Amino acid sequence: MDDRVHEHAEVLVDWSARIERGDHVVVRVAEGAHDLAVAVAEKLGERGATIATSYAADEVSRAYLRAHDGDFATPAQELALYEAADAVLSLGGGRNTFATADVDGATRQASATAVDPVREARLATDWVSTVHPTRSLAQQAGMSYAAYQDFVYDAVLRDWEALAGEMQELTSVLSAGSEVRLVTETTDLTMSIEGRTAVNSAASVAYDSHNLPSGEVFTAPYATEGTVHFDVPMTVSGSRIRDVTLRFEDGQVVEHSAAVGEEALTDVLDTDPGARRLGELGIGMNRGIDRVTDNILFDEKMGDTVHLAVGRAYDACVPDGEAGNDSAVHVDLITDVSDDSRLVVDGEVIQRNGRFRWEEGFDAGASA
Amino acid sequence: MDDRVHEHAEVLVDWSARIERGDHVVVRVAEGAHDLAVAVAEKLGERGATIATSYAADEVSRAYLRAHDGDFATPAQELALYEAADAVLSLGGGRNTFATADVDGATRQASATAVDPVREARLATDWVSTVHPTRSLAQQAGMSYAAYQDFVYDAVLRDWEALAGEMQELTSVLSAGSEVRLVTETTDLTMSIEGRTAVNSAASVAYDSHNLPSGEVFTAPYATEGTVHFDVPMTVSGSRIRDVTLRFEDGQVVEHSAAVGEEALTDVLDTDPGARRLGELGIGMNRGIDRVTDNILFDEKMGDTVHLAVGRAYDACVPDGEAGNDSAVHVDLITDVSDDSRLVVDGEVIQRNGRFRWEEGFDAGASA
Repeated sequence: MDDRVHEHAEVLVDWSARIERGDHVVVRVAEGAHDLAVAVAEKLGERGATIATSYAADEVSRAYLRAHDGDFATPAQELALYEAADAVLSLGGGRNTFATADVDGATRQASATAVDPVREARLATDWVSTVHPTRSLAQQAGMSYAAYQDFVYDAVLRDWEALAGEMQELTSVLSAGSEVRLVTETTDLTMSIEGRTAVNSAASVAYDSHNLPSGEVFTAPYATEGTVHFDVPMTVSGSRIRDVTLRFEDGQVVEHSAAVGEEALTDVLDTDPGARRLGELGIGMNRGIDRVTDNILFDEKMGDTVHLAVGRAYDACVPDGEAGNDSAVHVDLITDVSDDSRLVVDGEVIQRNGRFRWEEGFDAGASA
Repeated sequence: MDDRVHEHAEVLVDWSARIERGDHVVVRVAEGAHDLAVAVAEKLGERGATIATSYAADEVSRAYLRAHDGDFATPAQELALYEAADAVLSLGGGRNTFATADVDGATRQASATAVDPVREARLATDWVSTVHPTRSLAQQAGMSYAAYQDFVYDAVLRDWEALAGEMQELTSVLSAGSEVRLVTETTDLTMSIEGRTAVNSAASVAYDSHNLPSGEVFTAPYATEGTVHFDVPMTVSGSRIRDVTLRFEDGQVVEHSAAVGEEALTDVLDTDPGARRLGELGIGMNRGIDRVTDNILFDEKMGDTVHLAVGRAYDACVPDGEAGNDSAVHVDLITDVSDDSRLVVDGEVIQRNGRFRWEEGFDAGASA
């Protein structure tokens, strides 16, 4: 087995999930994640945790859902499993990213509603989601298998402690700040972040961060004004979307266009009133991720990018007693900020052309 | 997918486990049993049961066990899973029958002790174990993959209702009987079955039978006298055993020999006092199983065979308040009765040369 599989397991168990002796751990294994499951089991054995394994196979879900009449019950046995678990490690990595493409939306939705208590029980644990590189994900990324493995391990095997420290700088700036302005050749957008809390998403439950890889700082903006252009291509609900432009007035999208997938974009924005407001401003800081692979787990953490999500805000960013933006959707859109860009907080340039204020090569002299 | 995989799933879900709407089902999926898991999920969806899947991969167990310091805790999350389950369907079929061969016995034993409450919770459900044909099991059987698939489906896809009816005849005879005598060219053995209950093992929880395939009738004999020769080869704890002869006096083995593996046989018999007494007399009645494949799930149900186990008796055969033979082991040994043999209950020939009294071709006239 590739040594990096063992290193991945170690980062997951120790840095991300902080597993300790006696922890009751559920490991969810996707169809293609067997090797990572073996490496994770070894680490859990070393740590003296207990282990129970779920088989999270899309083809099994598809067969079950398509055969069902739609009157779903909550699976009491799975609920009991997660309620008794301290941590849940989800090892993604399937064999076909379209394995459930022919399950109809109503069935999917009815099942999700019945399974919601299970999902909530899982989210109440120290859960972490990661992916094992598979040929299917390499194909989704348009990459060879070997190159995709390199890509995944570059993203996952970081010096997380050092990155968490660096991200804390930005987290402090955003938590203390009132107004953010993002400027590129085709973007000039202003948002309020007054009273909102930024999250240092450092790929560890110790940071309330549940994805491996992670490497972003995010907050929940509001009162958005201006125009933003997203030049990173995305897949939203199975539709390719490219070169989105949104114009905001009074916090709401009042104009939108896309070079590709404009109809899908319109559908998203028409979901509910909250779908026209921002739910997230995220700044990608994982420079191990150096290309778009059409997988949001990686894309939104890419170094030198900024993403904005229309729709639902995360509770962690909003003070107790206050409501963040609410919506049935949360769709991330990404823009490259490596060139000809600046991110300005309360009149001070925090990042210019992808370099942060505290990094070497930061150009302090130019305009805010 | 081979139609027979779907038929296998249907027999398992409907005949064996008797799954009904709202049942909470755990499906345990071995490394090579993905296709059967998909077919079983489809059936569970059709029936309106709920599903939770476990990944029962030997390589995952091996990695965990070898890394652990041996001070195991009971996995509370897995215990909760089985305690909340109505049925557990175990889909065997690995990729290497020796996948855990390098886990030491003490570790294995310590883990089994910690996991014992989980095992008991599983056995308290409507559990059924079956196997999906894999290349590894074909290799174990010394067969090509295609021939092994035919073999498994011939064994599993029976007219179980008809076979259960036929087996009921023998079950009634044995439950009512007092003394069984087995005679072949090299065997003349007498056992008491007075007061013992025979079990019709018809591959269904409705018959308190938890293996698919099944197809045997068994009881718990005692007061064994005489000599028995087993001509079907076996693997016991990893050792090949061939041509075993046992001589009983007063219910105990007083002499034993084996052409191959005599040392392993001696180890079994020396385990404890109960290991020298019989725990089971079983009559194989599944004529879909027509050859030895070195897999006890199949071998002991083979038509025209009789097996005897030294060691532990099953509670179901022993009246309440009475103790059956107790031992840490239960090792089955098999003899071919298709030729030159007779099975006699209370002086009446029940089976001669593999034909039962109620079958065409039964030779009623000859001696008992």
